[in-house]
Parts: sequence; structure tokens; C-alpha cells
Amino acid sequence: MKVFVPGHVTFFFSPRPEEGGSIGVGACLDKGVIMEAHSGRKRDNLSGIRREVVYDISKELEGEVHFSGRAQLPFKHGLGMSGALYLSVLLSKSIELGLGKTIEDIGEIAHSLELRRGTGLGDVIAQIRGGIDVRLKAGGPKTGKIEKLLPRKNYRVSIAPLGELETKEVLKSEKVLSRFRSVGENLLREFLESEGDLELAVELSKYFFEKTKLGKLMEMSNEFHLLGDSLDEKGVTWGISMLGKTIVSISRSGIERRVIRKTISRYVKPIECRIDPCGARVI
Amino acid sequence: MKVFVPGHVTFFFSPRPEEGGSIGVGACLDKGVIMEAHSGRKRDNLSGIRREVVYDISKELEGEVHFSGRAQLPFKHGLGMSGALYLSVLLSKSIELGLGKTIEDIGEIAHSLELRRGTGLGDVIAQIRGGIDVRLKAGGPKTGKIEKLLPRKNYRVSIAPLGELETKEVLKSEKVLSRFRSVGENLLREFLESEGDLELAVELSKYFFEKTKLGKLMEMSNEFHLLGDSLDEKGVTWGISMLGKTIVSISRSGIERRVIRKTISRYVKPIECRIDPCGARVI
Repeated sequence: MKVFVPGHVTFFFSPRPEEGGSIGVGACLDKGVIMEAHSGRKRDNLSGIRREVVYDISKELEGEVHFSGRAQLPFKHGLGMSGALYLSVLLSKSIELGLGKTIEDIGEIAHSLELRRGTGLGDVIAQIRGGIDVRLKAGGPKTGKIEKLLPRKNYRVSIAPLGELETKEVLKSEKVLSRFRSVGENLLREFLESEGDLELAVELSKYFFEKTKLGKLMEMSNEFHLLGDSLDEKGVTWGISMLGKTIVSISRSGIERRVIRKTISRYVKPIECRIDPCGARVI
Repeated sequence: MKVFVPGHVTFFFSPRPEEGGSIGVGACLDKGVIMEAHSGRKRDNLSGIRREVVYDISKELEGEVHFSGRAQLPFKHGLGMSGALYLSVLLSKSIELGLGKTIEDIGEIAHSLELRRGTGLGDVIAQIRGGIDVRLKAGGPKTGKIEKLLPRKNYRVSIAPLGELETKEVLKSEKVLSRFRSVGENLLREFLESEGDLELAVELSKYFFEKTKLGKLMEMSNEFHLLGDSLDEKGVTWGISMLGKTIVSISRSGIERRVIRKTISRYVKPIECRIDPCGARVI
């Protein structure tokens, strides 16, 4: 049985290390990781995923299996791919071995892997639910609290990956974390009071980026600023995926999507997605 | 924007009126209610759904809209269709009017409608999540606690609706509720300790039915007992949907599905579904 785990973009967040995670707003993508575990098959078949990492994750559950799988999005671009990999490896293994676990049981293990490895703070709970997530209480799927926002339009998401970034490099400074914390908390409050939609969340990501001085910290390229300006000129709703050197634009029509695609293509090959309403599941 | 809300079968449950709901195990179906709300359109277009009921539900949110929608499963058969209708009407209205609510905000309103009208105790929280649900704490989506079980096979579900039943007729006796409570609680404990799968949940529904003496209470027809015996002879995994005069069989292969279809067809037209892994969503 194959599992799919969506990728995930975070628009803004407030770290809550003492509660083991973060609060914030983001959205799941209909591209992510597809994985299947096999008992008694000798060859792995992995595309875009490092074998050593998969086997390292697999050790979190007892038993031996092999894996076939592929990554549909790049790692290290703020697209929640570490969480997607952890979840997909452990969910597929649990199914293959008939461990009788719930998605939340596995989610707790994946979430603590994220914290231990410093690869993320809140993707896993969102990836289990799918859709546009409002994370109200930090933690894994059993202790955190999440709600799903109703999208008002049939949005498409265009992603411009402009450079690699290791999440843990950004999250290691106490000073930076404290800045994230206060900015993210204020934005979440503002968002909840506004009857906000996906468009507002995307716009607020730029505000988060600016107020936390992430631009300086992450050493954004010239392309990043030029693409942002071009999208502004076209009147496009765009924002930044945390923590990544990645611009995320949303469109409500085919015409708008073509404008975005043409604009992004001048700098990098865009990745086009929809919002995944569903979360981690058997496919 | 159209919304889909899955139907839902409950295999066993323990009522928790003091906590505003129930705990138990069930599964969402890929048939349910599809609904769309329109501003400023004069004609409704409803199939299999009573117009008065829709407008009565709609009053729970302010504002005026019209509705187009259809029921893909019958009401009054223990298929969670009241919850699906409440959710679909309120979700589609909220989207059309741009109320900026989360699915959980709407879910709370739908859940309290279920309690007030006596039409259900735990369908709504399950219908918001989708999949095979293990409800661990009673309540609506904001106060209850739910986990999703990983299905080990690509199950299909065949439903034999054998007669109408009003949920509130069964739930009105204190004595009956107290019997449900202790039997359901024991079964949930057993299920959680067993590393159980969907097949076990379905089997346990017969045990719940027997121990709670539901057969006598619900005045099951001869067809019900004859069909159950025939399915047993064929070695099929089958159970009963609470609270309904409805037999639910699950199959893991095309051959098995054909056997089930042929057996059920002798008594009633079967309804064939898959498990919906996703829950209430925009489609």
C-alpha cells in the first residue's frame, strides 16, 4: 500500500520550543512524498530521496522492510519535505508490518524526529490534516491543536525555489527565535481577528519576513528581490515559504496563472500545485 | 464552490451525554452529501434532500443564500447523513458569504445541531477528519479527540440498507443508553489493545449489536437475519451500522466484492463505496 504525504508551506509562525513545536498558518500542497514499504524485497527504488536517510528514519519502528518512493518536491526549500519523508517512511512501514497504529501515533514519532534533527517545528501536524492549517497550539498531532480554514476560491499555487537553506541553521540562534516568536504571535492574532483567507496568510508572510529581518539572515539573492518586484508589478498575491528561499504565488484563474508562470520562468522553473485538502493517507 | 461531506458508519460507540457526544469507532464513506450555496440565485436544486430541512439548518448562520445539492446515500439508515447535511449546508454557506470560519468552527455548530435534534452523537467530528476514525474523547471537533487508523488493505464497503430507523427513537431511553455505554466502552478498550484494523471494528459491531440487545429494540426484519447468515456462510467480513437497519460488508478483492454484491442483491440493492480518507472539503 502506497502512502502520500503532502508538502507544506508555512506563511508565518511563532516558535514554542517549551511546548515542543510552533503555532502559525500554512497550507499543504498536492505534491510531496509517495512511499511504499515492502517485506522481503531486496531492492529499494528511491527517486530524489537519500537511501541512508530513509533507513535512519525507518529505525524508529522495529522490523525490517525495503522502500520504494519518490520526492515530488525538492528538499531544503521550506516545503516541509523532511516532515513528509519522516511521515511517509513510518506510515508505510507501519502498514506493511500491520502494527495497528493510528496516523497520530506515527505523527508523534515523526514530529519528535523533526524537533531532534532541527528540520522543522510544525509541519507534521499540518501534513496529517491537509488543507490550509491554522495551528493554534504547538506540539505533535496528539498534543497540538489545529483547525482548517475554508478556501474561498479554487486557488492554484506556483512555487519559485530560489536556493537551498537548512532550517536548523536559521533556528539555532536564541535571539532570532525570540524575534520570530513575537512577530509570529502578533500575526496569528491579527489573522484570527480578520476573518482571513489564504490570500491574507500569503500577504502576511512578507510582513513576517520583513519584521523578523529574515532577508538579512538568509542572504536572499538578487533574483529573489527582482522576482518579488515583478510579481508586485503584475498585481499577483505572493509570499515567502518559511523557512526557505522560496517564493509562493497564488492564482484564482488560468490567465493569472499564466502571468505568474511567465514571470517566475525568467528566474527559475516554477513548480505548480493545488492545495491538498486531505493530508497523509493511503493512495 | 461545492463542498463534499462523507457519509459515516459507526461500528460501536459509548454515549457520553455529559461530555456532549460519544466515543467509538467508525469509518467515512466516499458517498455523502454534495452542496453548493449561491448568493442572489432564485432557484434551489436539491436532490434527495428536503428543502425545509436545508433552510432550517441554514438559519444557524446569518445571511441569505440558495442551495444546490444532492444526497448520495439514503437518510435514516445509520449512514451519518444528518451530520453530512448539517455540515454541507453550513460549510457551503460560510464559503459563499466569505465568513472566514474554519471547518472546526462550522463543525461545532453542526455537532450541537445533532445533539439538539437527537440525530447523532459523534458523526460530525469523524466526518471532518475522514478515514477510519477512533474517537477517544467525546465532543465536537474543538473539544473531542479523534485519531485515524491506517487501513491495511484497499477495502471496499458494500452497504445493504434494510429499513428506516430514527436515531432519536433508539437514543431516548436512559436504560438503553446505559447499556450502550458499558458495552461500547469495553469494546473500545479491547480494540485499542489489539492493534486492530477495520476488519476487527466491523466484526465487533455484531458483538455490540448482540450485547446491547439492539435486535429486539430495533425490530430487525427477517431479511436482516437471513442476509447475515448468508454472508457468514460465504466467509464475508460483515457488521452493522449504528444506529441503522443496515448491514455493512467489507471486501479486499474483486472476487469477494462480487460474492457480496450477489448475496446482498437477493434482499436489497447494495450501495458500493470506498473509505473516504479525507473528510469534509471543497471539491
